[in-house]
Amino acid sequence: MKTNRLEAFSDGVLAIIITIMVLQLRAPTEITWEALTPILPIFISYILSFIYIGIYWNNHHHLFQITKKVNGKILWANMHLLFWLSLIPFATSWIGEDHLMLVPVVYYGIILFMSGVAYYILHQQIIKAHKDDEIIQKVYENRNKAYFSMGLYLLGIGLCFIHPLLGAICYIVVAFMWIVPNKKVEKYIEQ
Amino acid sequence: MKTNRLEAFSDGVLAIIITIMVLQLRAPTEITWEALTPILPIFISYILSFIYIGIYWNNHHHLFQITKKVNGKILWANMHLLFWLSLIPFATSWIGEDHLMLVPVVYYGIILFMSGVAYYILHQQIIKAHKDDEIIQKVYENRNKAYFSMGLYLLGIGLCFIHPLLGAICYIVVAFMWIVPNKKVEKYIEQ
Amino acid sequence: MKTNRLEAFSDGVLAIIITIMVLQLRAPTEITWEALTPILPIFISYILSFIYIGIYWNNHHHLFQITKKVNGKILWANMHLLFWLSLIPFATSWIGEDHLMLVPVVYYGIILFMSGVAYYILHQQIIKAHKDDEIIQKVYENRNKAYFSMGLYLLGIGLCFIHPLLGAICYIVVAFMWIVPNKKVEKYIEQ
Amino acid sequence: MKTNRLEAFSDGVLAIIITIMVLQLRAPTEITWEALTPILPIFISYILSFIYIGIYWNNHHHLFQITKKVNGKILWANMHLLFWLSLIPFATSWIGEDHLMLVPVVYYGIILFMSGVAYYILHQQIIKAHKDDEIIQKVYENRNKAYFSMGLYLLGIGLCFIHPLLGAICYIVVAFMWIVPNKKVEKYIEQ
Repeated sequence: MKTNRLEAFSDGVLAIIITIMVLQLRAPTEITWEALTPILPIFISYILSFIYIGIYWNNHHHLFQITKKVNGKILWANMHLLFWLSLIPFATSWIGEDHLMLVPVVYYGIILFMSGVAYYILHQQIIKAHKDDEIIQKVYENRNKAYFSMGLYLLGIGLCFIHPLLGAICYIVVAFMWIVPNKKVEKYIEQ
Repeated sequence: MKTNRLEAFSDGVLAIIITIMVLQLRAPTEITWEALTPILPIFISYILSFIYIGIYWNNHHHLFQITKKVNGKILWANMHLLFWLSLIPFATSWIGEDHLMLVPVVYYGIILFMSGVAYYILHQQIIKAHKDDEIIQKVYENRNKAYFSMGLYLLGIGLCFIHPLLGAICYIVVAFMWIVPNKKVEKYIEQ
Repeated sequence: MKTNRLEAFSDGVLAIIITIMVLQLRAPTEITWEALTPILPIFISYILSFIYIGIYWNNHHHLFQITKKVNGKILWANMHLLFWLSLIPFATSWIGEDHLMLVPVVYYGIILFMSGVAYYILHQQIIKAHKDDEIIQKVYENRNKAYFSMGLYLLGIGLCFIHPLLGAICYIVVAFMWIVPNKKVEKYIEQ
Repeated sequence: MKTNRLEAFSDGVLAIIITIMVLQLRAPTEITWEALTPILPIFISYILSFIYIGIYWNNHHHLFQITKKVNGKILWANMHLLFWLSLIPFATSWIGEDHLMLVPVVYYGIILFMSGVAYYILHQQIIKAHKDDEIIQKVYENRNKAYFSMGLYLLGIGLCFIHPLLGAICYIVVAFMWIVPNKKVEKYIEQ
């Protein structure tokens, strides 16, 4: 089975997730610059979540560039990933409204950690389905980044109990690690 | 006429249905763990509905993998299926808010039953349009699962009047039956 | 330029229009059958609008099956059609809430009339862009149905001032005329 | 890497942006023609934003017609463009509600200016990725329109401080400049 429909469905879900977050930005009732102040934390959390979904889309894009076929397990692994990502708008609005308080930041970290786990499972299922494909085995062999990210998320969740800001910093570090998607994919396709 | 646009439109509608349900999860106003308690039933019903839409998408995906052409009737049968599935978010929010009370659970059962009927009609229309295609006739010949599911939904609706939980259990049993999409499709494509 | 992106974008917009209407169905606060009564008119208007968008999608689907190329004018004609269709959810909620009162029904008629005009313009632009294509000229030569529909909408809007129900009946008659998309397209593709 | 998924994702996001704006049009509670008066400014700002997103989609459509490959930088440049466009619904509702007051019009101008900058960056990244492709270099060599637009936006933002209407006129002039997408693309493809 080809990958095109899985990609189209994922594109649809991610496009909606990334866009509905903007619905939380309500136009202020007054028309002064000060009226924008209460919107600011929501706006910053919108930017961060936009970047996060953007990172996932970009990596998902690269992941399926050289994937040749899908099976039932990959479909479900992908659906599982979309489930956790779909909870990001909710986490965003909570953080946005409550600044950097303990509970929302811990919650956000759990969603990010679970998304990372789901992405890892999807990754593993794709490798499994292409057992005989040497190139895919090579391009995807390195899983250190995945392990390191998950560890960093857990560390971040723990550090929240000292100060939520420390947790937030951990999440941002992981984000930076994934901004550039797997370069091996681009190299392989160019050949 | 090729199937690609019907698939793209269905992907779009299902992507929206699965995602707008999350809009019902409102960030709690307080920032304690207890603040999450009233959200819990809504969250559980979100998970169940997510799985349900996921199951329909997966089966729809497999159904159209070997479908070669569509006609006006198939377009309408598909639209009919999307109509019933589009009512699931409404059912979800009602169950989520009212836990397991009689009326919402019966209503949810009716939506699920009608979705099952619509899927069956779509299935039949595809078989009809491929009369001369032996493979499709073979892959899709078994309709027992469809009949059994519809029967189980009706049983569940009836059992609700004893206790809504009994109905909910019936719905979950049907869900389990469809988590693995038609294996014959995968086997056929691999050959 | 190929048609695939215009189709994908239209599918996306129509998928959203058809689905966001369901957001207006709010779960009743009580859990009796009577609680569903105030939702009933909104539900009926949801069904009608779902069918309307469904009809447009089906006809749009057939229209682009044999269209081979697009140009800037066709892109804008299509955007114009989507604009009028995007106003249907608003019209739906107004009718749904106010049953069959004069103003909303007239308004709904205007939206339907303008959608019909926009579809006709799109249709004409496609014919113009395929001047040298005999088949498209033949398949699309008959415009009587378009003229008749637009006339019937205008009649319906006028009859509203006698009784809104008469207007509504006119709209429903037009809907029936378009439920079966252009059969010539299917015949031509089969050959 | 091919462009198809970037196009599909952008189509999804733009389809949602263009459609969720209509959710701000709430059905009036009364059923007289006068009840439509308070909706009028929101409606006009809906039309303008619809045209703006339409222009961006059309130009984006043409831009990727002859683009042959994408890389990580183009993916991010595109995501950056979508980010600014996603803020248009928010700007629309603010202008719609507050007519032509200073702050919202300045804000709208900033969003439009940043969208223009983002489009320019995307444009540059595509040219960079096709260094050896003479045709793309030729078709996209003229950047005067881009520079002129950005200048006009800045002028418009400045003129707002004299009168918001002057700013709005500048934005509309830029819109007119982009209604017809790059004609060179159509000419090239026809050959």
